[in-house]
Amino acid sequence: MRPEHKEMMKARARNIKLTLSYDGTNYHGFQRQNKVIAVQNVLEDVLHKLFGDSIELAAAGRTDAGVHAMGQVVNFFTDGTIPIERVAYAANRLLPDDIVITKAEETDKDFSALHCVQSKIYLYKIYQSPIADPFLTRYYWHVNKNLNLENMQEALKYIEGEHDFSSFRSVGGNDTSPVREIYEASCKQEGNIFIFKFWGSGFLYHMVRNIMGLVANIGLGRVDKDEMPRIIEAKNRALAGRMAPANGLYLYKVYY
Amino acid sequence: MRPEHKEMMKARARNIKLTLSYDGTNYHGFQRQNKVIAVQNVLEDVLHKLFGDSIELAAAGRTDAGVHAMGQVVNFFTDGTIPIERVAYAANRLLPDDIVITKAEETDKDFSALHCVQSKIYLYKIYQSPIADPFLTRYYWHVNKNLNLENMQEALKYIEGEHDFSSFRSVGGNDTSPVREIYEASCKQEGNIFIFKFWGSGFLYHMVRNIMGLVANIGLGRVDKDEMPRIIEAKNRALAGRMAPANGLYLYKVYY
Repeated sequence: MRPEHKEMMKARARNIKLTLSYDGTNYHGFQRQNKVIAVQNVLEDVLHKLFGDSIELAAAGRTDAGVHAMGQVVNFFTDGTIPIERVAYAANRLLPDDIVITKAEETDKDFSALHCVQSKIYLYKIYQSPIADPFLTRYYWHVNKNLNLENMQEALKYIEGEHDFSSFRSVGGNDTSPVREIYEASCKQEGNIFIFKFWGSGFLYHMVRNIMGLVANIGLGRVDKDEMPRIIEAKNRALAGRMAPANGLYLYKVYY
Repeated sequence: MRPEHKEMMKARARNIKLTLSYDGTNYHGFQRQNKVIAVQNVLEDVLHKLFGDSIELAAAGRTDAGVHAMGQVVNFFTDGTIPIERVAYAANRLLPDDIVITKAEETDKDFSALHCVQSKIYLYKIYQSPIADPFLTRYYWHVNKNLNLENMQEALKYIEGEHDFSSFRSVGGNDTSPVREIYEASCKQEGNIFIFKFWGSGFLYHMVRNIMGLVANIGLGRVDKDEMPRIIEAKNRALAGRMAPANGLYLYKVYY
């Protein structure tokens, strides 16, 4: 956004913060794109109808194609006059079923959903089963062999702390420094469901999915858990192996 | 199917029984149709590729558009030679993610998935929440006000036993007698999720969804639970009110 355009937007009367859940299956990610449909296009169109002026959203995280969100946060400036307590209800009536606004708040002019992020939590979900389950396929990565929980938990411990995560950064992101701090990298198992949690200061392009590809290989016994520190140290994307699919990933919570 | 055609099919070497799970969201029901896509079309095409001959499925239940199945049963006659233990794996690789064969068995020539049904279980799933959840919307009916579990449970007790269920039969079915025996009609709650179970000798057209429309109105306090016997007795579809949506309904199990 050009600086003068940004100033013009900030001159509008209100800064609105929204919290969103969406099923990313049918979208080419969050960020607005030409020719394909993204969550941002759909949401901006609906907000334009409610508020009257043209809407430009800033978002906490650009989720990729097929990635879900339970706590995506966006903000926008508007001169529209709809009372804040009616925004979520009115917008949800116009939005498709796979995008839901869970919270709408007035916020001060300096708040930016993108720039004010302190930390984020991503979840990654796997189900383990010899046969696929059509009711889980949109929302979990299906792994058909046994996963060793303890080995995955121990491998995740090595992820915690401040590291150069170049080994888990895909080409194509526009992040500058590859250093991030991870406060928690953990896994819990409930029956044949594995829920992974990644809480950190920030995440590089495809970082969680690249970590998960390796962690699953460790769980399957294809890579030793104690290889993890060497792979991090190497700062070499080629060592970490395959990337986990998008459909298991959720932007769960954003802290400001 | 013409009798001579049926005899020709039965002259084939094998009778194969399959158990299926599917997410019905993207299909116009189970039964093969022209111009729109049904589960049967997709499945017959894949089985034709595996077995070589033209496949005609008989199914335990015609699920309607948008209705799901966890235990649909079908059978077909074939001269194809693929070993039975490879059928599910090979077919699942060719099927879309929303249809899964969970079991494949050789069965004797007299077995018909349609005609040999002894009883069936349907489940119906509701989630109660003031705000919609995009991850539940395909698989549950969303009810945004409180539901009274005990009132629904007591109303369901009246459904059990042998009754003329004309009050819950939609126009358009081709059932002859409206009398069915229901062995169990029950509901359990887990947090904000309600799971309803209907186990019976058979079900009329839209019967479970018509019952559920009324039961939800009882849960919401719009209809008194003790109206149920009068509504059954009346044998009048107009009294039971709205039909519950397809996306909460599952063909769960078929007994032979």
